[in-house]
This record gives sequence, structure tokens and C-alpha cells, in this order.
Amino acid sequence: MSAIPEDFVNQTTRLSEDVTGPFPNSRKIYVQGSQAGVRVPMREIAQDVTHAFDGDEENPPIYVYDTSGPYTDPNAEIDLLKGLPPLREAWIEARGDTETLSGPTSEFGQNRQSDPELAHLRFEHIRTPRRAKPGANVTQMHYARQGIITPEMEFVAIRENMRLDELRQDPRYAKLLRQHPGQSFGANLPEEITPEFVRDEVASGRAIIPANINHPEAEPMIIGRNFRVKINTNIGNSAVTSSIAEEVEKMVWSARWGGDTLMDLSTGKNIHETREWILRNAPMPIGTVPIYQALEKVDGKSEELTWEMFRDTLIEQAEQGVDYFTIHAGVRLAYVPLTAQRLTGIVSRGGSIMAKWCLAHHEESFLYTHFAEICEIMKAYDVAFSLGDGLRPGCLADANDAAQFGELETLGELTKFAWEQDVQVMIEGPGHVPMQMIKENMDKELHDCYEAPFYTLGPLVTDIAPGYDHITSGIGAAQIGWYGTAMLCYVTPKEHLGLPNKEDVRTGIITYKLAAHAADLAKGLPGAQLQDNALSKARFEFRWDDQFNLSLDPDLAREYHDETMPKQAHKVAHFCSMCGPHFCSMKITQDVREYAANLGVAAEKALGEGMKEKAEEFKAQGAEIYKEV
Amino acid sequence: MSAIPEDFVNQTTRLSEDVTGPFPNSRKIYVQGSQAGVRVPMREIAQDVTHAFDGDEENPPIYVYDTSGPYTDPNAEIDLLKGLPPLREAWIEARGDTETLSGPTSEFGQNRQSDPELAHLRFEHIRTPRRAKPGANVTQMHYARQGIITPEMEFVAIRENMRLDELRQDPRYAKLLRQHPGQSFGANLPEEITPEFVRDEVASGRAIIPANINHPEAEPMIIGRNFRVKINTNIGNSAVTSSIAEEVEKMVWSARWGGDTLMDLSTGKNIHETREWILRNAPMPIGTVPIYQALEKVDGKSEELTWEMFRDTLIEQAEQGVDYFTIHAGVRLAYVPLTAQRLTGIVSRGGSIMAKWCLAHHEESFLYTHFAEICEIMKAYDVAFSLGDGLRPGCLADANDAAQFGELETLGELTKFAWEQDVQVMIEGPGHVPMQMIKENMDKELHDCYEAPFYTLGPLVTDIAPGYDHITSGIGAAQIGWYGTAMLCYVTPKEHLGLPNKEDVRTGIITYKLAAHAADLAKGLPGAQLQDNALSKARFEFRWDDQFNLSLDPDLAREYHDETMPKQAHKVAHFCSMCGPHFCSMKITQDVREYAANLGVAAEKALGEGMKEKAEEFKAQGAEIYKEV
Repeated sequence: MSAIPEDFVNQTTRLSEDVTGPFPNSRKIYVQGSQAGVRVPMREIAQDVTHAFDGDEENPPIYVYDTSGPYTDPNAEIDLLKGLPPLREAWIEARGDTETLSGPTSEFGQNRQSDPELAHLRFEHIRTPRRAKPGANVTQMHYARQGIITPEMEFVAIRENMRLDELRQDPRYAKLLRQHPGQSFGANLPEEITPEFVRDEVASGRAIIPANINHPEAEPMIIGRNFRVKINTNIGNSAVTSSIAEEVEKMVWSARWGGDTLMDLSTGKNIHETREWILRNAPMPIGTVPIYQALEKVDGKSEELTWEMFRDTLIEQAEQGVDYFTIHAGVRLAYVPLTAQRLTGIVSRGGSIMAKWCLAHHEESFLYTHFAEICEIMKAYDVAFSLGDGLRPGCLADANDAAQFGELETLGELTKFAWEQDVQVMIEGPGHVPMQMIKENMDKELHDCYEAPFYTLGPLVTDIAPGYDHITSGIGAAQIGWYGTAMLCYVTPKEHLGLPNKEDVRTGIITYKLAAHAADLAKGLPGAQLQDNALSKARFEFRWDDQFNLSLDPDLAREYHDETMPKQAHKVAHFCSMCGPHFCSMKITQDVREYAANLGVAAEKALGEGMKEKAEEFKAQGAEIYKEV
Repeated sequence: MSAIPEDFVNQTTRLSEDVTGPFPNSRKIYVQGSQAGVRVPMREIAQDVTHAFDGDEENPPIYVYDTSGPYTDPNAEIDLLKGLPPLREAWIEARGDTETLSGPTSEFGQNRQSDPELAHLRFEHIRTPRRAKPGANVTQMHYARQGIITPEMEFVAIRENMRLDELRQDPRYAKLLRQHPGQSFGANLPEEITPEFVRDEVASGRAIIPANINHPEAEPMIIGRNFRVKINTNIGNSAVTSSIAEEVEKMVWSARWGGDTLMDLSTGKNIHETREWILRNAPMPIGTVPIYQALEKVDGKSEELTWEMFRDTLIEQAEQGVDYFTIHAGVRLAYVPLTAQRLTGIVSRGGSIMAKWCLAHHEESFLYTHFAEICEIMKAYDVAFSLGDGLRPGCLADANDAAQFGELETLGELTKFAWEQDVQVMIEGPGHVPMQMIKENMDKELHDCYEAPFYTLGPLVTDIAPGYDHITSGIGAAQIGWYGTAMLCYVTPKEHLGLPNKEDVRTGIITYKLAAHAADLAKGLPGAQLQDNALSKARFEFRWDDQFNLSLDPDLAREYHDETMPKQAHKVAHFCSMCGPHFCSMKITQDVREYAANLGVAAEKALGEGMKEKAEEFKAQGAEIYKEV
């Protein structure tokens, strides 16, 4: 019998009602790769037929990138107590460069696992951890540099392509695939993403595939500026509130709405156990900031942090399966005084912890001095670095200052060092930056960090709108994404004010999905405009349900329409609630086209010439031109 | 006794509870000008003292641009049944170039006024309309070109300056006035806005002051790229819903949150009466699309529209006091066929009405052929043109196409013509445009329309997020505002889906306020960063109430904070709800500074050098470094 209490089980099972089930008129499909087990999920959205005056027109299904994992697959058996199936296990096994340990090798991990008082919280089916064989390097970057295309790389290539190669051959998509040329600012966006292209990007360090060998449940994804712009979401129980069940629910919720990766920023009790639950059920890569947990271990006294206990924390988390670590190794002693005259000093939690440690010891931080040993851990599990921007600006006034840019240069040095060990790296970025200063951040990052993927928080383009900081930061995020940022860390409406609830999380995610998508469009990512075109066509043709279904948040779109026009008949109404039947411009345009076609001439011809003699007929028919449904 | 029924009166009076009353810790101040009656309202936000370890520091009051009108002045007597005081009446009178008519001169206006069945709806204190004396031209542009600085121009200069000249002399503001250099893309943003600068901008056509002589209640404001970026809000009862009281309430609500101008887009019954109520109580300029009302007069049969009845509508509305008219005179016959192959055809209501008329008659529209006569009306009342973009794109696919840009060129021709008559002009712009194509819109507008102010709707940078289109469009709005757009037309979350409610209106306005502000910051508008700096300082110093009060939406900021930390003690808590007391980076930074100061050395010095020997002391004190409130 399970040691987990029934109310906990019930609470956890309740997730399914809330967050599972497919999206409207959608189904999960899987595209098979060439390597065993490569089976890439996508969401297929079916569309209604267009009933036009000149006959019916089939509208082909639209495929969208799907981060939701098995949760939206009605054929998948979801049991949060067991965790997701270990999709990547056979691939890892097959590489033969890892060994299964008898149990956690970290002291902390061992203590937690043997503590009987934690039995009621503990995830039941903890897998024994895996580690690289002595001397082996199990990073995707290492394989890529050996010329090996891993199943993870093939998975990613298929996922990024979104069947574009097939759609291009299908005449039903010809019009929908039309797209404006982009302005890529040097990004290299091929018409087709091949597995070899993925390998090359990973080998060069321009992209990372966060894929810890102890998180085989995750569906591989890639972060790099020559791919779709990704978004990260955050969860985390703070000292103030939250429970394990809530955090797991938020993770599934985040996957549902489009979170590409998720950071567990927990700082309260039972961080270790919460993380296990999340990892075993997470279809996306998971990141953490290990210094948070380390600080808990010394009761918040940052000056008592030591390399030894930090090292133990890294191993503890790596063996659980964390895919990337935020490490603030760029907070060097010399940069700290540069923050003293700032308007808002140091605002990164990790940055301020390390700054305080540096001051207390008057030494470079152990993150910097032990960076080589950290790399050894990273390559034994394939944990990617997310080099933290501990000195990022906390307000417009402090943007792009010497402290921020000094740290960025150090992150570049560290990147080079990590790459020499074949360890994957991305670089964290700001923060609060007015629009005219955003591009400098991107340009400097590309230069100083050798094109390692940039991962930014916003930036917020003004400080005066607390309560709307998902928007102030979404504006900055869309721009920096366009300029080349590979992943955008979401911000919720509660930023600066409180802890986000479920609705805030959804709002934050969709805001960032649309910002990332706007960036893809602006860069000219092949196929990016397909969904826009399909939705706009549906809108123009009054296929309301298709318009809702094709949108980033079908539920909210439908809900808003219901508020003004609740009846089912309104979902096929040939006018919008905004204007009423007499003022619908789309209706008028269609009437004009229909009229032209009825006369037996091509629309353009009818419109362009010879209309004078037809004008009287048109007027005679005019009374019928507004038809109410 | 009033003919207005009591329930209507009650409904209207109820406004006061909802939307009047000052903002928290704010008071309305008035800055006196040199000309009689020039008394410019601003909002002053008081701040708390900073209790720092090294003594108290006074935080000076912050002044913000105030669009809310007398409604937030506790000393003003608000009576919606009487309307606002006619602020500009004496100025208009003093110019001696207008005459008071005995009543409305439009046929429609006369009919409505004499219809006894409308008595219960009619605004009671209708002012007899005023018109230019024969041969006179009463536009602000005309005065400007004569070298006259009107009271309106002085009012605007003071309003734009926001006391910056005084603050620069006050040492309390020295640090707060620090600001990053902007990138203005050719905008000319002087350190001080003089009345002469305003006059020159209006004379050149680079800016407009929408100020109908029959709307003396409005507080003058200016629209031009060398001034603060403005936002427009929309209201309007459609055929589907809404009442007069609701519309008036929305207008006051819109003023409260920051709407600089307001368009009444009503299309239902009693448009005339609703408009009168709105105008008499509106502190901001009001715009309309007269073709909507004209279409109502022909029961929605656009082909039956005539110049004569349109002309009557213009006079009807001009005599009520509408400050600017959207006129779709650029929809030329030759451009209509260019829309036939579009994905979403013509999406502007006015544009589609005129396109249909052109087709039905196979003639250029009467808006185009009678443009000279329209100008005559505009200059007799000082109504500004908002030249409509009837062929704006309704989706990304149709952005920047031949139809859109063809129309824009015609708008440029019309601008030139209007300017020859000293009639004020702004130009409407899109719409739906991916980010990489936004700047071309601005550049082309500046070139083709000779720097006439651009007034855009968004643009939306993706089509796939209905329900979030305030955000998709806010992203585009911030960018095009930065590039030089003078006014941004707001979009609410209900765009494309339904009619906005009060909360949607607030959300739309704040989104656009923050986008406009982000644009001001990016352009480098002098003083723009002051409010950001003050808010960030308050945030850093845990002055929670000041942080809320200085934000664009103090109510929501406070509400969100209350959700996580409801107690009053939390409003002075020295940590954030997000991180809890042990993880507050701002607290750590302050502790570091405090520690340094306690040692008797300057912060920078202490941080930069000689810390080694102090490190032990610091550690000894360390246990006290996190103090809970």
C-alpha cells in the first residue's frame, strides 16, 4: 500500500478534470522519425468547410507546436503517482556511456530518501539515478561534436519543422503558406530543419537541447536563435504559501498553455520532494537555481554557504533530473561596487546572495573559482548551464550599466570554458530596459558570448505599470526575440506584487506565446505565418468556431464572444458583435466579391472595369445585401 | 421641471460614486498661464518619507499628465445634466471671428431638436451653436499661421511641460530626473515646450489641437510626434446593445484612466442625443465617423448615400462640437480592385461603405469629389480631419499592400489640399502588421503625408491571439509610437470578439498608456523617465503605497498585492511576497549599503577595497541581517 495519504492522492488526481482533455476540435498526432522511438507529438486542429457562394471549399487541418505532453492525449494513461513514461530511456541506455547508480550519491539526497518522516510526501516510483561512466561525457553537445545525430536531435528537427515539408506539397496549403519576408538580424533560418542542422547548431553552441539523462520523461526541445523562439515559465512554493499538489498542477497547466521549459524556483520546505513530483510528471525540461536550495540548507545565512554543500546540491538535483541550472558565476567581486550607486541595486535573488557572500569573504565566489568542477558535474548528467545575470538591472535607470555589462563579459569567458568541456550553455539577460536600449543587449550578448543562446526576462520597457508587467515585458520580449533571443522567460500580471494564481499563469504564458510568435514572424521563420493566415481566413469567412480553435487561447476567445453573443446561432452569424449586421465590413467585402462572381466575371475584372453598366443591377439587388442569419 | 425621467437622472448621477474622487494620495493642481483663463490641470502624487539607516529623506511630489478633467477634483461641482463649465468660451468669444447661430442649421439637427418624442432623452442645456463669421477661418492652424499664440496653444505648452522647468531647479529632483538618451528617429523634442514651439508645430501641420468652437468644455491637448504620445479610446452603442447613460459613464471612465481623446462610434438609435450628452460632459476632444450616422439615415443602404445628406450630417455634428471627423476620402475607385485578392478584403467599416458606394455608382466617392466643400465646413467650426484608412489591412497577410499604400498616397494629396485651407489634419494608420514591416508604415506616412500626425490602430503584430489583442496591438503600438506615431488608438481584450465592458476599457487604456509611455521613453522625451525613477525608488525602499500610487493603475496594483499579502503591516514589509523574507534581493542590497555606511566609509569604497579585514565583523553581525517586520 502506498505511503502517500489518500487526500494527497485525491488532490493530485483532481488535476485531470482541470487540465487534461484535448483542445477543441483538436487531436494529438505523432510523427514518426527514422530512429527507434522517435515519435514527435503535434496538435492537429481540424477546420470546417467554407460555404461560399461559388461552392464549398475544404479548409485543411492546421498543425501547431505542442508542449502539452501526454496530458492532452485521450489515449494516454495519466497517473501522476507513477509519472510519465520514460520516453528517452532506451536512447540513453543504447548509448552505453552511462551507469545506473545504486541510489542517490549526494548526502542530502540520501538523507531525504531514508527519512521516514517524508514518506507521506515522497514520490513513490523514484528511479535509481544514472550517471556517466567514469571519463565519459554524456552531453548532447559532446555527441554533436563527435558527429553523432542523437534521437533527441532528430526529434527536435521533426518538432521544429511542423510537417512543413509535407504541407508544401499539398495544394490546399498553397495560399495559407504565403508569408512576408522577415528581417532576421543575422539569424540563419533554413527552409527545412534537418537533423544534421540541429546537430551542427548544438555542436557550435548556438543552440542547446536541455536533456538530463535522469529526466527521460521530457520531450526533447531546442533553444537557439535559428529555431522557434521558446518561452519559459516559473513555478515555486515560496516560504509564504503553496503545496506540492499545487505546484504539480501548475506545471501541467503550464505545459498545456505552451510553456516550453519550466523553472522550479521553490524556496520553502520540501523542495526536494516537490521537485521529484514535478520531474517525474514533466514533459518539458526543468530548470532550477540550486543556490536557493543551498541557502535553505544554511538557514538563509548566505555567508555560510560553502562549495562543498553547493556541490552536494548540484549532484542531488542532477540525479533527480534537472535539465538546466541557473548559476550566477559571473557575479565577480569587482563588479559588486559598481552596483552601489544604482537606483535599485542588485535585484536578482541569486546575484544578491552571491554578492553578499563575496563581500563577507572578500573573495571571488565559489561558483567562479570552482567553475571547472561544476562543469564536471554538468557533463556527467548533461545538465545545461543557464549562466545567471545576477547583476541585471531592476529598473530602467540601471539598464545597460557597467555592472550588468561587466558580468555579461564574464559570462562570455565562462561560456568558452564550458564549451571546451562540451557542456551546453545559455545566457540569462535582463530585466528592465527601455526600448531604445534593448538591441544593444542582444548585440553585446551575441558578441561577448559567442552566439550562445540568450534567455531574457522580458525586458520590461517601463517601470510604471505594476499589475500590467506581463504587457510591459511582453513588449520588450517581442523585440528582443526578434533581434535574436532564443527563449523568453514569462512574466505574470502579479510581477512585483504577489504570487501568480492559475489564471495569472495562463495570462503570462499566452502573452509570452504571442510575443515569441511575433518574433518568429518578424524574423521570417518559415511557416510562421500559416496559423495567422488560417485564423484570419476563418475570421473573414465568419467561421467563428475555427477562429476560436485556431487561437492561442480557444477557451478565452469563445468566452469573450459568448459574453456579447451567447447563442449558438451567433457562432455562425455573418456579422460581428462589435458592429451589428449593417456595419460589418467583412460582410460587405464578401458581398462585393459575390456580386462580381454572380455577374460571371472575375472579381478583379468586375471591380476594376466595366462596372458602370452593372451599377444599376447592383443597386437593384442592393436591398438584399445584408442578410441576417 | 426637467423632461428627463427620474430613472435616467438617477442612472446618470450614479456615475459619481464610480468614477469621481481623487486618486490615492493625489490632488489636482492647476498651473496658471499668462493668458486669461489658462489654468492647466495636473495630478500631484505625494510620497512618503524614506526612513533610511542614515536618516530620513524627503521624497518630493510627482506630477503626472492628467486627462481626467474636473471629475477627480473634489472642489469641482459635477452635474452631468448641466455639463462641464465652458473653459474655452471666453477665448473663442474674444477672438471675435465667430457668430452665435439661432439654432442648429442642419436639417437633421433641427428635426431632432423639435421632436417632442425625444424630450426624455435630450440634454437639457443645449448651447446655441457657434460658427465662423462669413469668410472667417477659425482653425488653430489658421491662427498659428498668422503668428497668433492662442490660449489653447499656451495651455498645451504648459500641459506638455509638466512643470519640468521648475523641477529642474529643485535639488530634490536631481537624481530622479536622470534619463537615458533616446533614439528619436528624427523627432524634435526640445528641453522645454514653449507656446511658440506649439504654434510653430501647428502652423507647419506637424501637430494638431482638436478644438471645435462648439466644444468649449474640452481641455486643450495636442497631437504630434514632437509631443507626448497620446492615446484614443472608443465608445459607441452598436445596434446590439448599450444606452446613453452607459456611454456617458464610459466616457468619464475613459477620461479617468488616461484617454487623451475619445471617438464616439455609435451606430444605433439616438446617436444624436447620445453625442450631445457626451460632448457636454467631455473634458477631452471627441471624434466621430460621420459616415456611420449617414448610413443610419439611409437604413444601411450605402449606395443611397448622397453628398447632400452627408454634408448635413457634418454640419449637424460640427454644431454639436465634434472635434475631429474620420473621413475616408482616400478610398478611390481605382484602389478597390486591389483588395479583391486580399485574404480579408476591406475591414474598415467606413472603407467598405465607401467602396460599395464607389462600385454601385462607378464613380469616385463624394468624400473625394467634395473634399473642398468639406474643408469649408471644417474651417467654419475648427473640426480637424482624421483622414481614414479605409483600406487598412485586416490581417498580417494583407499588410503594406498596394491598396493600403495607394490610399496613403491619396491621403497625402488630401493633406496638402486641406493645409492650403489651413485645416488641421491627422492620418489614420493600420491595423495588422508584423513587426518587421511596421517601420515602413511610419516612414512612408512621414514622407507621403508631409509629417502630418500619424494616428494608428495598434498595429497588431500577430493574428493568432484573439482575447489578447490589446497585447498583440500594444506591442505594435509601442514600436510605431517610438518610430513617430503621434496618437495610438486603443484596443481592448474584446477586439474581434465582442463589446468591451468597463473592465475591458480600463485594461485597454492602461495597456495603451504604458505603450505610449514606453514610446516617449524610447524617443527620449525630456522628463519621461521621472515617474519610472520615482516608482522604482519607492519599490526599492519598500514604500509599497508609493509604488501603488505612482503606478498607472493604483487600484489594481494594490488589489494584486492584497491577494497575497492582505494585511496593512505588509504594506510596510521589508520583503516581497514573491520571495519571502530570506530571499529578498533588494533587502540584501540595502543591508550591504547599510553595513558599509555603519563602518564609516563610503559605500563604494567599502565595497571596493579593504573589505577583507572587515569581513569577520560583517559575519559576526550577519545573523541580524534579515530583519522581519
